[in-house]
Amino acid sequence: MIEASKAGTAAPIVTYGMVGGGEGAFIGDVHRKAIALDGRARLTAGCFSRSFPKTLRTGLELHVEKERLYESYTEMAAAEAKRTDGIDFVVVVTPNSSHYAICRAFLEKGIHVVCDKPLATDSKEAEELAELARKKDLLFGVTYTYSGYPAVKQAKAMIEAGEIGDIRFVNAEYPQEWLADRLEDTENKQAGWRTDPAQSGISNCVGDIGSHVENTVSYMTGLRIKRLSARLDTFVKGRSLDDNATIMIDYESGARGLYWASQVAIGNDNGLAVRIFGTKGTISWRQEDPNYLKVVYSGKPAMILSRGRDQFAPRPESLVRIPAGHPEGYFEAFANIYLTFIKALVKKAQGGQPAGDELDFPGASDGAQGVRFIEKCVESSKKDAEWLEF
Amino acid sequence: MIEASKAGTAAPIVTYGMVGGGEGAFIGDVHRKAIALDGRARLTAGCFSRSFPKTLRTGLELHVEKERLYESYTEMAAAEAKRTDGIDFVVVVTPNSSHYAICRAFLEKGIHVVCDKPLATDSKEAEELAELARKKDLLFGVTYTYSGYPAVKQAKAMIEAGEIGDIRFVNAEYPQEWLADRLEDTENKQAGWRTDPAQSGISNCVGDIGSHVENTVSYMTGLRIKRLSARLDTFVKGRSLDDNATIMIDYESGARGLYWASQVAIGNDNGLAVRIFGTKGTISWRQEDPNYLKVVYSGKPAMILSRGRDQFAPRPESLVRIPAGHPEGYFEAFANIYLTFIKALVKKAQGGQPAGDELDFPGASDGAQGVRFIEKCVESSKKDAEWLEF
Amino acid sequence: MIEASKAGTAAPIVTYGMVGGGEGAFIGDVHRKAIALDGRARLTAGCFSRSFPKTLRTGLELHVEKERLYESYTEMAAAEAKRTDGIDFVVVVTPNSSHYAICRAFLEKGIHVVCDKPLATDSKEAEELAELARKKDLLFGVTYTYSGYPAVKQAKAMIEAGEIGDIRFVNAEYPQEWLADRLEDTENKQAGWRTDPAQSGISNCVGDIGSHVENTVSYMTGLRIKRLSARLDTFVKGRSLDDNATIMIDYESGARGLYWASQVAIGNDNGLAVRIFGTKGTISWRQEDPNYLKVVYSGKPAMILSRGRDQFAPRPESLVRIPAGHPEGYFEAFANIYLTFIKALVKKAQGGQPAGDELDFPGASDGAQGVRFIEKCVESSKKDAEWLEF
Amino acid sequence: MIEASKAGTAAPIVTYGMVGGGEGAFIGDVHRKAIALDGRARLTAGCFSRSFPKTLRTGLELHVEKERLYESYTEMAAAEAKRTDGIDFVVVVTPNSSHYAICRAFLEKGIHVVCDKPLATDSKEAEELAELARKKDLLFGVTYTYSGYPAVKQAKAMIEAGEIGDIRFVNAEYPQEWLADRLEDTENKQAGWRTDPAQSGISNCVGDIGSHVENTVSYMTGLRIKRLSARLDTFVKGRSLDDNATIMIDYESGARGLYWASQVAIGNDNGLAVRIFGTKGTISWRQEDPNYLKVVYSGKPAMILSRGRDQFAPRPESLVRIPAGHPEGYFEAFANIYLTFIKALVKKAQGGQPAGDELDFPGASDGAQGVRFIEKCVESSKKDAEWLEF
Repeated sequence: MIEASKAGTAAPIVTYGMVGGGEGAFIGDVHRKAIALDGRARLTAGCFSRSFPKTLRTGLELHVEKERLYESYTEMAAAEAKRTDGIDFVVVVTPNSSHYAICRAFLEKGIHVVCDKPLATDSKEAEELAELARKKDLLFGVTYTYSGYPAVKQAKAMIEAGEIGDIRFVNAEYPQEWLADRLEDTENKQAGWRTDPAQSGISNCVGDIGSHVENTVSYMTGLRIKRLSARLDTFVKGRSLDDNATIMIDYESGARGLYWASQVAIGNDNGLAVRIFGTKGTISWRQEDPNYLKVVYSGKPAMILSRGRDQFAPRPESLVRIPAGHPEGYFEAFANIYLTFIKALVKKAQGGQPAGDELDFPGASDGAQGVRFIEKCVESSKKDAEWLEF
Repeated sequence: MIEASKAGTAAPIVTYGMVGGGEGAFIGDVHRKAIALDGRARLTAGCFSRSFPKTLRTGLELHVEKERLYESYTEMAAAEAKRTDGIDFVVVVTPNSSHYAICRAFLEKGIHVVCDKPLATDSKEAEELAELARKKDLLFGVTYTYSGYPAVKQAKAMIEAGEIGDIRFVNAEYPQEWLADRLEDTENKQAGWRTDPAQSGISNCVGDIGSHVENTVSYMTGLRIKRLSARLDTFVKGRSLDDNATIMIDYESGARGLYWASQVAIGNDNGLAVRIFGTKGTISWRQEDPNYLKVVYSGKPAMILSRGRDQFAPRPESLVRIPAGHPEGYFEAFANIYLTFIKALVKKAQGGQPAGDELDFPGASDGAQGVRFIEKCVESSKKDAEWLEF
Repeated sequence: MIEASKAGTAAPIVTYGMVGGGEGAFIGDVHRKAIALDGRARLTAGCFSRSFPKTLRTGLELHVEKERLYESYTEMAAAEAKRTDGIDFVVVVTPNSSHYAICRAFLEKGIHVVCDKPLATDSKEAEELAELARKKDLLFGVTYTYSGYPAVKQAKAMIEAGEIGDIRFVNAEYPQEWLADRLEDTENKQAGWRTDPAQSGISNCVGDIGSHVENTVSYMTGLRIKRLSARLDTFVKGRSLDDNATIMIDYESGARGLYWASQVAIGNDNGLAVRIFGTKGTISWRQEDPNYLKVVYSGKPAMILSRGRDQFAPRPESLVRIPAGHPEGYFEAFANIYLTFIKALVKKAQGGQPAGDELDFPGASDGAQGVRFIEKCVESSKKDAEWLEF
Repeated sequence: MIEASKAGTAAPIVTYGMVGGGEGAFIGDVHRKAIALDGRARLTAGCFSRSFPKTLRTGLELHVEKERLYESYTEMAAAEAKRTDGIDFVVVVTPNSSHYAICRAFLEKGIHVVCDKPLATDSKEAEELAELARKKDLLFGVTYTYSGYPAVKQAKAMIEAGEIGDIRFVNAEYPQEWLADRLEDTENKQAGWRTDPAQSGISNCVGDIGSHVENTVSYMTGLRIKRLSARLDTFVKGRSLDDNATIMIDYESGARGLYWASQVAIGNDNGLAVRIFGTKGTISWRQEDPNYLKVVYSGKPAMILSRGRDQFAPRPESLVRIPAGHPEGYFEAFANIYLTFIKALVKKAQGGQPAGDELDFPGASDGAQGVRFIEKCVESSKKDAEWLEF
């Protein structure tokens, strides 16, 4: 239920529910804090776990009314859809394999959805969700977080404006270290489900972080993949899914790309780094130092563009909350996706039709493309890195 | 009014009011977002401006009930103190010169206070506030933000544990560029009041950022200043307060220090950087890259300690919200101060007596020390950098 | 002719000649300066250009006796071999396509050789040179410069000692920008011959810098390539050879590798960077910041090892000329190869047989392997990145 | 004796002798290698030690004729002055306290001099040397090495050209760690004489590295010191000279400066760093990363200028030996001083009068200024950091 600003002006508050994100989960709490930062949405319903006692504990801890804590997501979707003060949107933060069914349930009840990535474990299902959202005229967000950073949006704006000319080559990587050992043999819940095909789907490393590389590059550059050749590795013995991947890309424009994702790269945490080489210049960005862009024009000195200090394009500038030199981080990137989503939702609720930058958050079709990317990588790797049309 | 968690367990929600932070202000919004991040406090009252229409606009925009928007802070303190659901604490984010009177008004009504720094424009007044809070048994926080970073707390913990031996020398600096030109001649509200003695007090640069250097070093090291010699500069013509300062410190322990603060250092934004040299090793930290500590022990390779990745001491570890490689920034540092303050407040409200790390936020006596530091720097500089006992 | 130290002790001076490196050339002068640094060899003969007037001008400028300036390398090889004070070794710094014939001429006359890389334009010829040197018992050096850096040797030593466990993955790259435009259409001599198949051979980018990646990785890790899949690009229109290359490697040990080389990567100069991921740790090195190694052991803080400061293994330590913090660079890396070569040559001349670290410079078989690498990359790329056994 | 180029053109070779730099010394070898790099001078005479057997061993090792190895520098000066093939210049690399007498001896015999810094232990003597060189019309170089870096010269050129406007503030530092413990109690020869007043003079830290700060800033900026306030510390017990120093500077132009030098700053090697803040921009340079300048103009993105890549002014550009991305280091900085000195010497010998950039090496008056700086710092510190006119 959208609560109008008491001033009757620009900033009504909306309500949301969450599926997943109970005790011991990590990302659900990040979503909640990121939403809280801007004060534009309140958590009012939840089904945080398949265990109802856990849902109760989590929900009450989060000050959700007991009657809006649900035993199942189907019950939740049905009940919230009926309430006059029902949730405006649902956040789905369960393991990958359940995304499809849960998102579908809420869409069918007319509730807007934000879902964690990868959107599904099967691209057909992902496309179905995209189609369903379109048909129902519902907003659908997919939390490819990194597109939320202002510097990433600035890179996108500069590339769109032709500032680095035509793109020739993209080098993007996402090294991590956290699965360099058999963490799945410990109590670590994350490691357990991510390396388990039943919960994670056909891929671990490409699914979890390779997909971020794909999305971040697609978002920044607008390049469309024509074909790819992928080699997936499983370096840790006894693991059934990939923990490292190298992918060569040919884009439709004639540009070429190289992606690398790894979960065994000791010394790296969330080392997403994208370098985009054009005919006139180069733009580089590193997620671990996200407030800066390195830009080099041909024949000119290298420049460091700083969020808040150097004039960004209107869209990224609008998402800068504090001056330069005071770092914004991961929560703010997340919050930018939610802020945009919520504003679009409010506009829709008020009878408007969000368009352009008002829809500048990753959507269901981005999600579907991500799932197709995972599928193609896995298939190519099984065929010894054969080139596959995308 | 503290709203118990519906689970009856650990995390009740408290309410707060704000004085200052209306339209066009910067830091008030940062406080509100930092408080919102953890979802432990709600804004329910305010006097955001000396102009009541502005207070109304700001307050209604922020979903505060109209009846709890006040024409003056005195009215607010009185009214909220009377309500059974009155605010649990007040946040004071007005220009420096009004801090004392406002804080005093709320303390006298028995309301806990968080005040921006510098705490006052006169150290006697600051000490009076400290004394009043003690007498009234009220919590008093001063938002020296940088002590909220986990890496700063880790530095403190390592130094306390003797890991770098006895401290010999401290080199700390805070360069900014924002006042390199006469920004006060533009519409910039910040620049206007900060360079105006009537609102800012006897110092601009030392008051605004030199005081951060003093607090961050004191917090990290526990060193006590014995005497100091300061040279304050005003480089921009027509400005009446300082915009650059160099300060030599002798500490009581025999250690020596060197502080530099500048608002005319083009190319710098919030370049707070602290390097602490001990007999066994060195710890360095930079606010613009706040998730890392550089630690070098004598004869050993330099090390980069990473928040979330490398094991921090229990206190800093408890304030890490996300894994390494996903940057936490300024909002989280701020939020850590508030989270600690709010937990202490709840404990008190529940009859407990917070102690030790439960009070690990900058308090009124830190604030008073900061004001004394400003006074001594200004006095020393007037006497051509004469050494003054602290 | 080896000139004994006047002290009769450790450091006699040898003499050398040079083929190539005349006016307008770049690398010949680097070789000369690198040799001069340690004062262990004097230039006493030369055929610096196919134009004899140019050879004369260059040679006299370099204080070489006129009678030892030659019209052709064949004349030079013959004449110097006959002199009692003839050169001890020759340095070959001509375009790639002439390396084979020149090296062969000197080897046949019994003169030790140092040749620039790539050693030849055909791996058979390269292997022939290796074989010939063996047969004649002559020293043969190939100036893969980067193996001369102490930090690279330290990485090698640490890897050999098992400090990072078994290698899983190697990510190595060498981005440059200098051919991002059609520099070959200008007067630039370098660009002219490097992009000309007649002088450069079958590859430009892989030949010039991809081969450095291959050699540096092989040297550091000892890994042997089992097969590779390469995609070579020509991004600049009208160019006939490659200017960018992506190469996936499977090593014999089961480790995997990814190499990228580019000459169109605006913003990069000689960005050789190698990251080696093992089961216990990671070692990273960047040529543009060559005095440091980043080493991260699993579960331990990242470390920065500094040449001269942190204890290196005996071999790299022996090549450190100045204390830490005073940067050593490219000339010293080059000089290290020559110093080792010259010492080996002296030992041989004195009847000894250099072995082990005394032969720690890139040799003819490394050169031959480099040429095979180029050939395989070109062939794989022509077959649409087909995997080829190495 | 200047040996004309056999081509009769631009590059004759000169000869030099050395006083100091025997076995166990460090810097003498650096001088020799730096001179050797460009092949413009040969070592032909020496008195490397007060112990003649050591001089013999060192000299013969270095291929110096036995008859030109001397028992004393006075003998050397006399003998070389008489020879028709006598040395063109002498390099003095003995401990500080002997510089004056040695330099004087050679100047009196009409031999050009290059002397290590600090030039003397007394500014009167230093000025006498300057005067004597002027009177005798001899070249006198002082090896303040850091002014030899092309990036330092580029900073100087940009500042002279007014690119950063009027200088407001200079922050310069030189932290080292090597004397953090009592290294003088070990066999370390360097530590021994540097901390010994009899050999080092009245200061250790300011004398050794503070003087580098002074010279580098003076060279880059052209600022003249008006007065200074210095606090010298001795942190290591039992040491009689300073090992840390903080110095506040007022320049004649009204600009202000802050210098810090330390030998107890664990984790630092030769951390000379200079930041110059003007009304229009800022230039920063770090000796440990010497190929780059950071330049920020007001309101423009930060830029990284790269030696060899970005167009430098004619003077620094003329001293770039290799393209960008291949690091030049300490030896090349040293070599630049010698190359300039030798060219000036040759011009003089050929009857010319070097001027302008032809004399762009630190000279005797720079040396004298450096000694005065040391004296004033020591005196100010003794008076509790009293301001002293310079």
